Amino acid sequence: MIIIGEKINATRKSIAAALEARDTGRIIKTAVEQVEAGADYLDVNGGDPRAGREVQNMVWLMEIVQSNTDVPVAVDSADPEAVRTGLSMAKGKCVLNSISLESHRLEPMLPMVAEHECMVIALLMSDEGTPCGVDDRLKRTEALIDKLTAAGKTPDEIIVDPCFLPISADPASGRGVIDAIAGIHRRWPDVHVGGGCSNISFGLPKRKYVNFALLTQAIYHGMDVGIIDPCMPGILAAIYAAEAVAGKDEFCMNYVTAERKGRLP
Amino acid sequence: MIIIGEKINATRKSIAAALEARDTGRIIKTAVEQVEAGADYLDVNGGDPRAGREVQNMVWLMEIVQSNTDVPVAVDSADPEAVRTGLSMAKGKCVLNSISLESHRLEPMLPMVAEHECMVIALLMSDEGTPCGVDDRLKRTEALIDKLTAAGKTPDEIIVDPCFLPISADPASGRGVIDAIAGIHRRWPDVHVGGGCSNISFGLPKRKYVNFALLTQAIYHGMDVGIIDPCMPGILAAIYAAEAVAGKDEFCMNYVTAERKGRLP
Repeated sequence: MIIIGEKINATRKSIAAALEARDTGRIIKTAVEQVEAGADYLDVNGGDPRAGREVQNMVWLMEIVQSNTDVPVAVDSADPEAVRTGLSMAKGKCVLNSISLESHRLEPMLPMVAEHECMVIALLMSDEGTPCGVDDRLKRTEALIDKLTAAGKTPDEIIVDPCFLPISADPASGRGVIDAIAGIHRRWPDVHVGGGCSNISFGLPKRKYVNFALLTQAIYHGMDVGIIDPCMPGILAAIYAAEAVAGKDEFCMNYVTAERKGRLP
Repeated sequence: MIIIGEKINATRKSIAAALEARDTGRIIKTAVEQVEAGADYLDVNGGDPRAGREVQNMVWLMEIVQSNTDVPVAVDSADPEAVRTGLSMAKGKCVLNSISLESHRLEPMLPMVAEHECMVIALLMSDEGTPCGVDDRLKRTEALIDKLTAAGKTPDEIIVDPCFLPISADPASGRGVIDAIAGIHRRWPDVHVGGGCSNISFGLPKRKYVNFALLTQAIYHGMDVGIIDPCMPGILAAIYAAEAVAGKDEFCMNYVTAERKGRLP
């Protein structure tokens, strides 16, 4: 699985405080600890409602993260100007997190996707809102893949985020998204599928168990990108074990290597 | 999921020692702690190679377990005489663990299955050995279901154990057994599927992660009986979370109740 470390995100209180105080040390620590835990990419989100501030935050975060780690970033914003700034600063092949069918994202960001060599997360949101069930997700996936390939992306540069919705609100949400992942993986085997799935457990106690269960079942069906906190105890163990059982880890080499690296607590 | 507590088994050193010393307290403790943790049935295995000894062990264990708990037992033996003894002593509707296509089990035990009101675990072993892949498992399931229904069992009295084989020896073992579970569940929706799955992780480090992953993925595909150690920290949390995500726990009631009962560590 491709692990995108999610922790440098202004929706987290400690990161919002670090952004406000321009606390470089906190950002370095949060970047380095995720890479040491196993992150392949680092998500960078400096969201801020104040005019112009998110672009400034993106510049500040990108400089710190990229000068203190060697993994590429995932430029994470809903603000096209912040995305443009992030993409222009990115070293190596970064991820754009994310484009969607929402016109306020699609129209300004599609040209950027075409210009930059980057992977792109295609979130299945549209102007009609969140997707519902399997068929709607497959239709939206097709629409986004069509637009992204027309913009020059290859299938393996596209990561479809199927929209993980809380099972506490609708018990069918879990099977809906997992069966959609299976359908997307079957129809577009070279396209990646995944994203941030912790929303699945919103409103439930001891959310990590629900998140681990979702990851484990979704991996069986083709999920291969996770936007997660790789420092959370047990999460990488759950992922490696899920891949081993699902036959996605030849001779369990990744699982055994993770044990040797001390990543199975 | 129907939880069969696996701990009273002579292959465990502490139970073998308790059997040898006729240590009643140890057996009571092992029975009660499993029921408190959430076991629906208690497996009772007093295996011993010495002539006549296993039958004596079964009598001793059955008396202790049944007079100190209120859940039914799973009479667990490969020795037809020990099975006959266990079934004759069982209060309530017990489980026979297990019959198979192996002639040394099938021939003596099938008449017992017909005589006693019990559920029965149908292990997919035959005189040719372990099953291989999905089709072989479906064929063996059909053969066993035919024999058991002819002996008077209803589909929901049958628990098919698909044979969980180590992924360390064959990386295809995990998908093989999970896809077989899906196939059995689809074709015989009233038949239960499951069993003891910890063999899946044989030869690997930190086996619990692999066992949890197998349980989580197999539950998605229809596994609804687990022969497990319900006292193992996190195992019931993994099971309840897996059922909630897989849409098998309406409004997450079991998951939330488990939290209230302190079963999510």
